[in-house]
Amino acid sequence: MCELLGMSANVPTDIVFSFTGLMQRGGRTGPHRDGWGIAFYEGRGLRLFQDPAASSESEVAQLVQRYPIKSEVVIGHIRQANVGKVCLANTHPFVRELWGRNWCFAHNGQLADFHRASGGFYRPVGDTDSEAAFCDLLSRVREAFPEPVDFERLLPVLVQACAEYRGKGVFNGLLSDGDWLFCFCSTKLVHITRRAPFGPARLKDVDVIVDFQAETTPNDVVTVIATEPLTENETWNRYEPGDWSLWRQGECVARGHCA
Amino acid sequence: MCELLGMSANVPTDIVFSFTGLMQRGGRTGPHRDGWGIAFYEGRGLRLFQDPAASSESEVAQLVQRYPIKSEVVIGHIRQANVGKVCLANTHPFVRELWGRNWCFAHNGQLADFHRASGGFYRPVGDTDSEAAFCDLLSRVREAFPEPVDFERLLPVLVQACAEYRGKGVFNGLLSDGDWLFCFCSTKLVHITRRAPFGPARLKDVDVIVDFQAETTPNDVVTVIATEPLTENETWNRYEPGDWSLWRQGECVARGHCA
Repeated sequence: MCELLGMSANVPTDIVFSFTGLMQRGGRTGPHRDGWGIAFYEGRGLRLFQDPAASSESEVAQLVQRYPIKSEVVIGHIRQANVGKVCLANTHPFVRELWGRNWCFAHNGQLADFHRASGGFYRPVGDTDSEAAFCDLLSRVREAFPEPVDFERLLPVLVQACAEYRGKGVFNGLLSDGDWLFCFCSTKLVHITRRAPFGPARLKDVDVIVDFQAETTPNDVVTVIATEPLTENETWNRYEPGDWSLWRQGECVARGHCA
Repeated sequence: MCELLGMSANVPTDIVFSFTGLMQRGGRTGPHRDGWGIAFYEGRGLRLFQDPAASSESEVAQLVQRYPIKSEVVIGHIRQANVGKVCLANTHPFVRELWGRNWCFAHNGQLADFHRASGGFYRPVGDTDSEAAFCDLLSRVREAFPEPVDFERLLPVLVQACAEYRGKGVFNGLLSDGDWLFCFCSTKLVHITRRAPFGPARLKDVDVIVDFQAETTPNDVVTVIATEPLTENETWNRYEPGDWSLWRQGECVARGHCA
């Protein structure tokens, strides 16, 4: 299993991995030794840092640690390989362009014998089930909507696809186009939404620090989605299998459940 | 004008920017203050570091400086903006997936009123003429060849497209799929090929160090392509306007000229 991390905020927010903790978990105290990646949207641009090396041994992880990046949407992933060898091309998150935007995806779980329908527009570069599913998903969206549509029209296509993937195994996924963040829960996913005034409170555990102090305004809203709660003293909202939600600027703008 | 840098080698090779020099040039002693980027292929995977900040002020540049990456194909770029505002989405190199491979492109020059034919598969995320040309180029390739072809069949399409872009302004470009590196010269481009035994010789100037020492074998071949020669004590091969070449594992496997 892998670990997912997502963030949606209404102001550019620092999400600084505490690599002291993360690096332990990625290969030392934790089993997620097969790479890690994190994608930060910056306007329509996307910064992607990733490494097939265990984060506990990753020089790139050390680099990112030194460089706090402010973003409104973030998708991160620590990998424990099930399908596909350990290499950069198999490292989440995956990125493709659709409608002139960068779409980004990370997956937790395993899909048995995932076969992409032939003729899809997007093709995997590596050989993971996760990237194959991402390519299939985007190809479906593109086939359904050659031109951009709003998320209300898009959602049924996303949900239907995710429901099918879930039928093939475990499919917890985070997807974004840089504007919204879509979450699908197959087995495990939690979220928490924090609002100003944050006061001295800040999200912090061995893995992640979201530093709300830096640029807090009374209107700030920051939602964090993760595989497991990242703090012990707060109430995280746990998704049921089949739950999905769509976040924009820190707020949930759509949610639902498929049986 | 911007500065291009490309490398093709038959062994994974360190191409370490001497950021001491580069950072001066990117905004202090040089005019290229509008961002920089460098893409390293690692197998089929691609590492992309970029920053819209002047390299002389770029924290990411400082990060990359600490982390030598071995690669067989590299494309780098320092930007002085002509078209498109200064932001991450407008920062070279640009990347798209085609045929299940990462294609990467950087451009030096300016295209007047570049309008992409409508209905193309690929769309720009930012608003530069360079990314629009890249999307147009890949869309043409995809239209001509929905399935992968070898470079012999591909080349006429690339050359024809570049010749047309050149007619719209200045188009010096580097393109790669991670296997080969294609170069097109509209006004300025040079290359040098170095072979083992390198002895004490190594490519070095204020901007770039290619460290051949690390993993040199008798069969090593490394070609570097740049806007201007990077050393003063060596003979660089200068391209004529209209020249193009295709490199693979450090060797030129095809070249030609269009009037």
